[in-house]
Amino acid sequence: MDTEADEAGSSRADRARRVANVLRRQVLDGGFGGGFDGGVLPDERALVAEFSVSRNTVRAALALLRDEGLVERRRGVGTVVVGRAYAHPLGELAGLAEVLHHHGSVVNQVREARLVRPPRAVARRLGLDEGEEAVHLERLRSLDGVPLSLDSTYLLPWIGKPLLALEREALEHRDVFDLIESVAGTPLGGAEVSVQAVTADAATRAVLRMPESGGAVLTVERLTSLADGRPADLEFIHLRGDRLVLRAQVAAPPGRGPGREGAR
Amino acid sequence: MDTEADEAGSSRADRARRVANVLRRQVLDGGFGGGFDGGVLPDERALVAEFSVSRNTVRAALALLRDEGLVERRRGVGTVVVGRAYAHPLGELAGLAEVLHHHGSVVNQVREARLVRPPRAVARRLGLDEGEEAVHLERLRSLDGVPLSLDSTYLLPWIGKPLLALEREALEHRDVFDLIESVAGTPLGGAEVSVQAVTADAATRAVLRMPESGGAVLTVERLTSLADGRPADLEFIHLRGDRLVLRAQVAAPPGRGPGREGAR
Repeated sequence: MDTEADEAGSSRADRARRVANVLRRQVLDGGFGGGFDGGVLPDERALVAEFSVSRNTVRAALALLRDEGLVERRRGVGTVVVGRAYAHPLGELAGLAEVLHHHGSVVNQVREARLVRPPRAVARRLGLDEGEEAVHLERLRSLDGVPLSLDSTYLLPWIGKPLLALEREALEHRDVFDLIESVAGTPLGGAEVSVQAVTADAATRAVLRMPESGGAVLTVERLTSLADGRPADLEFIHLRGDRLVLRAQVAAPPGRGPGREGAR
Repeated sequence: MDTEADEAGSSRADRARRVANVLRRQVLDGGFGGGFDGGVLPDERALVAEFSVSRNTVRAALALLRDEGLVERRRGVGTVVVGRAYAHPLGELAGLAEVLHHHGSVVNQVREARLVRPPRAVARRLGLDEGEEAVHLERLRSLDGVPLSLDSTYLLPWIGKPLLALEREALEHRDVFDLIESVAGTPLGGAEVSVQAVTADAATRAVLRMPESGGAVLTVERLTSLADGRPADLEFIHLRGDRLVLRAQVAAPPGRGPGREGAR
C-alpha cells in the first residue's frame, strides 16, 4: 500500500512535493535541531523509509528545498538547514521588534522619511483630503544584521510629522506601532491585512540580500486604525519568504456546523 | 518636494517598487474596472502625475507588475489587467467553494484519495498512534476552469475512510470542511494556520497552470480541529500568488496602548 509501485496515479514530482511539504515545515520550525542554522536532516535512507518513497523521490524533494534556499548539501555531513524562519503572529497587532526580541536585536535602517503627496489610492484609504500630505517612512528591518522585511508606510500627517522630528535612534529601534501610539497618545484599535505571494524583483531581492534562488516574498498590506476608528497608517511590507512565516489561530464562526446551509 | 529630482536618497528601483505597491493592490482589487479581466490602467502621463515620478519610473513599476503576471501591454489599448485576485478570508474557517461561489463554479479535481502510512511529523500533529494510517486526499481546485490551489490533506482515519466511500461527485464539489463536518457529525472548532511565500517549482507551476513569470505561491499549512479539540486534518495548500489574496481583520490585544512596556 505504501510503496512507490502502488502510487501509479502520482508522478514523481507529485510525490516529491508532498515530501517537501512536510520537510519544509520541519526545517522552518527548527525541527532538525542545530538552532537557527546548521541542523542536519535524516539521511536519504531514513527519508526513504519515513516517507515510503524511492530514493529518487527523496532527492527530488530535497532539491525543491535547496531551490528555496532552505537546505544545502554538505560533503561528509549531509543535508543541512541553512534557512530557518521566524514566526510572526498575524492575529496580534505586534511589530517585528516586539515579536523577535527574544531572537536578537532588530534594527531598522531608515531609507526614507519625509513628507509626500500620497497617491490618490493611498489618500483615500487614509481618509485624507485632496491635496493633503502624508509622511512616507521606509525602513529595512534586520535581525542581527540579516534583513527580514522592507516596510513602506504612509502615515497621517498629524501622526507622521512628529516622527520626522524624532531622533534617528527612535526610528531605528522602535516598531511603528509603538511610535504611532506614543505620538497619538491613544492605543491602536485594529488592522485590515492583505497577504499575497510575489516573486521579488532583482532590486528588492538585493535590498533584502536574498539568495538568487528562493526569491519569493510575502507582500503584506496593512491599514491600521486607532482605537476610535480613525486610520493611522497604511503599510506595504515585503517579508522574505525564506525567513518569515505568518501564524494565525482561526476560530470557527458560530454559524458553522453540520446542519448549516451548503453542508449537504 | 514631490519631484524625482528631490528624491536623491532613493534609487529608481525604490521608487518603482513604491509605485508598484499601490498599483498592485488596485489591480488585484479590480480597482481599474473591467471585471475580473480587461481593466485598463491610466496612461503613463496620468501615472507620472499621480505618483510624482518620472516616466521611466512609471515604466519600471509597470514592468514589475508585468513580471508578476498581473498586467500586459496591449498595442492601441495601453496596460491592461490580466490577473485579478480573489480574496480569501483567513480569519474564517471557510473553504474555497464557500468563499468563491459568488464568482463562479469551484471544481476539485481529485488527484489522490487513499489510505497511507503518514510521515511521522504528520502523525504527531494529528495525534495518531505509531503505525496508524491516515487518509491522504489531494485535490486541484479550480474556479471556472482556472486552477487556484492545490490542496494536500491528511485526515484522521475515522474521518477520512468514509470520504473514500463517497461518490466522486462529493469530493469534486464540496469543501473539505463540509465533508469533515458531515462525516464527524460535529462542527469544527478552529485551526492553526501558517502562511509562507515560496517560489513554485516547475511541476507545481504546471499543475496550477501558472505563467512562467509570476511563479510565487502561498504555502498554507492548516491543522483543523473539531469543536471538542480533537484534530481532524492537516492540510498543505499551494495557493497561486497571482490569483489569491488572504485577508484578515486583526484586533489589537487589550494590553496594547501607549503606557505599556516597550512603548517608551
